[in-house]
Amino acid sequence: MKTRVVIIGGVAAGPKITAKLLRIKEFDCTIDLYTEENMISYSACGLPYFVEGLIEDPERLIVRRPEQFEEQGANIHLNKRCIKIMPDEHKILVQDVKNGETQEVEYDKLAITTGARPILPPIMNFHLKNIFTVRKLQDGIDIRNKMREPETKKAVIVGGGYIGIEMLEALYLNNIETHLIEMNEHILPIFDPEISDLIKDEILKMSKGKVEITTGDGVIAFEGSERVQRVITAKGQIIDTDMVIVAVGVTPNTEIAKAAGIELGVSNAIRVNNRMQTNIKDIYAAGDCIENFHLVSKNYAWIPLGSSANKEGRCAAINIAGQYDAFPGVLGSAVTRYDGLTISLTGLNETEAKKFGFDTISSTMTKKDKAGYMPQAENITIKLIADKRSKKILGAQAIGSGDADKRINTVASAIMADQTVDEFLHLDMTYAPPFSTAVDPLLSAALVINNRIYAS
Amino acid sequence: MKTRVVIIGGVAAGPKITAKLLRIKEFDCTIDLYTEENMISYSACGLPYFVEGLIEDPERLIVRRPEQFEEQGANIHLNKRCIKIMPDEHKILVQDVKNGETQEVEYDKLAITTGARPILPPIMNFHLKNIFTVRKLQDGIDIRNKMREPETKKAVIVGGGYIGIEMLEALYLNNIETHLIEMNEHILPIFDPEISDLIKDEILKMSKGKVEITTGDGVIAFEGSERVQRVITAKGQIIDTDMVIVAVGVTPNTEIAKAAGIELGVSNAIRVNNRMQTNIKDIYAAGDCIENFHLVSKNYAWIPLGSSANKEGRCAAINIAGQYDAFPGVLGSAVTRYDGLTISLTGLNETEAKKFGFDTISSTMTKKDKAGYMPQAENITIKLIADKRSKKILGAQAIGSGDADKRINTVASAIMADQTVDEFLHLDMTYAPPFSTAVDPLLSAALVINNRIYAS
Repeated sequence: MKTRVVIIGGVAAGPKITAKLLRIKEFDCTIDLYTEENMISYSACGLPYFVEGLIEDPERLIVRRPEQFEEQGANIHLNKRCIKIMPDEHKILVQDVKNGETQEVEYDKLAITTGARPILPPIMNFHLKNIFTVRKLQDGIDIRNKMREPETKKAVIVGGGYIGIEMLEALYLNNIETHLIEMNEHILPIFDPEISDLIKDEILKMSKGKVEITTGDGVIAFEGSERVQRVITAKGQIIDTDMVIVAVGVTPNTEIAKAAGIELGVSNAIRVNNRMQTNIKDIYAAGDCIENFHLVSKNYAWIPLGSSANKEGRCAAINIAGQYDAFPGVLGSAVTRYDGLTISLTGLNETEAKKFGFDTISSTMTKKDKAGYMPQAENITIKLIADKRSKKILGAQAIGSGDADKRINTVASAIMADQTVDEFLHLDMTYAPPFSTAVDPLLSAALVINNRIYAS
Repeated sequence: MKTRVVIIGGVAAGPKITAKLLRIKEFDCTIDLYTEENMISYSACGLPYFVEGLIEDPERLIVRRPEQFEEQGANIHLNKRCIKIMPDEHKILVQDVKNGETQEVEYDKLAITTGARPILPPIMNFHLKNIFTVRKLQDGIDIRNKMREPETKKAVIVGGGYIGIEMLEALYLNNIETHLIEMNEHILPIFDPEISDLIKDEILKMSKGKVEITTGDGVIAFEGSERVQRVITAKGQIIDTDMVIVAVGVTPNTEIAKAAGIELGVSNAIRVNNRMQTNIKDIYAAGDCIENFHLVSKNYAWIPLGSSANKEGRCAAINIAGQYDAFPGVLGSAVTRYDGLTISLTGLNETEAKKFGFDTISSTMTKKDKAGYMPQAENITIKLIADKRSKKILGAQAIGSGDADKRINTVASAIMADQTVDEFLHLDMTYAPPFSTAVDPLLSAALVINNRIYAS
């Protein structure tokens, strides 16, 4: 008898589970994936670059097509929304989004990969035209079409997180005068304030007056007749605009899971163990709808990222197939960019680290990223954070050109392995003048922390 | 009474010791650095890029000038060669290279940082003009002057190691038709053969017929009247040329150390403990003249690199100052490039690993280094090597555009921390479409090894 595997959600983790299950030949199963969307397996992370115009054809963002899965024996059900999970009966209720018809589907193993959706902040007149959120492929298409209309000259972005900054790049590079508004005192508040401020300064410097950034102010209303024409902030700014992108964050799609008695954790994300099992037998979850164990804070956090979704999907598939795999957790490693400036971090920032009770010590330095005499040498700013007592590295932030993110991965690798600053500063890193300095900026940062620890 | 610190050698480790000692305020010392050269503290690693023309002014390669050190209280003695070390008397004998006069110099602590020199292979007529080696700043100046003469059209490079490849880039990009000859069956023999062959193919493809590479053949004679005009190989090739660069490797400058009874190790490099102490009291050594402890093979190896020289110099200075520091050893991490192709490795290659008794398993894969739909996405080939029994990662090699070296550093960080493939494949790496794929190629390589280990 084949095991009936049912998967709800089709962006990243769902297709990953499908693909991995199809490769586990010894597991005899049927696979049915249900999604309320009209496509599966697209790169949501690629939307800003599609809007920017680096990718012209939206089809390019699609990683795997339903037909590819169907050929291999998986069944992909588009435009079918799961509206109820019935764990006792091992069934889900699915509704056709076009005609409203419902059907019951039986499962032996269920995987919830319902992802997340944009938060819609309570702003007046959200219904006006040309106000967009960024999540689905169609959102990207709509934003780009509007941006490319000749009469579109100005835009407002609400929210200065990763997506806000990525959309800012896209609009700026398409010659749209853009005003970004972040309610927090700093953009990218996941970075420490002084690094956020540096990023803001760099963005403004690079954008030569075409971009404006307001922090510490929130949008309270949109105005216009039919289409948005003005944005009104709490502090009284009135900003003329032709379009608005709202990117104030996301929230997990976990309502049906909660209703079925599945335990939620932080930020209403689904709690799973390290095998991606929920508290209910035979129900697994993966991707943006689950919370993560943070390997530095040793606490749960909700850090929805495409890289984790892939790892979690693989882990869920292996365990669904009756084999064993465990996913230890995350560091929250992430990267974004603004017009050549790479912005990246891993682990805890210093503010968070203090909050979790660490006795933090940090060093922030700006150095050349290549031998100073090489014409391509550019500044890189690195902040390295450690715990004074254990000397363990807790996190790092890097701002620079090109490969700053790869230096962050090198620190991430050390953090995963519980390395101390003493150990890390002996790391044998590659060196040649076109690539780094004889003492890499990362090691310089570690040396400074080490010297301070031993001096105190 | 001040401690009299004497340093022999002034390229990398010697100046590093000087600089670090000057910063250790609590150590009351005099510092006297002797070098047979007429300058100190220049970047030998930068010479290929100086020849290439990326750096026009040779002065730019000088990291620190004698005057800078002198202002801070160190004494720099140029053109003074140490010809004898007398450990019992705590003295060295120094000879002026200009007038031959000798003088005795007393020390309390001695640091040997005499570096290495090019090997001169037994080739007939080595005395002919326009035959160069690459080590000192003047070598770079001489090579570039010759290359830039309008009548210079062709060159031969003897040796296909890092320096050979870097000089090949410099000459190729200056429109010199260049023939590189490597005696080994593969260029860059520190890489596994299939990776070396891939590098060779890529170089030839990029160079559009302007570059020729012969492997498995050696140069036995130069011919010409006064200046070199032809190169004759063991297999009978006769190659017309206007200039020759010989880069068949280096050998440590350790004759005076050996004569003084200082213990040598592999490749005649000085053996030191992890505090950079030689077997003789009060004598330290650092930089290209010392052997290294290899952290993967747990054997000694001679891997002279600028990155290690800096770490060893720092370590020596701290211990000379009576404080404590230990340098654990190296992985042999290195990087070079050929016209945009980054060539990098860390740890042991598979051939070496087998020789050291590991039960190796490896995976080599070529994947896109960024999301496939991004226009900048390019191929990266990664070979990851592990031990089947312990599952420990032993080494990695990467060939690709741009930041392939930084991915190698991420593996290096894992190797330093003794990580297994299972641990490494959970590494939380940064992801955004302009920077990597959702599952980074490094993690794909680790997943393949992991699958194979568990399948067997």
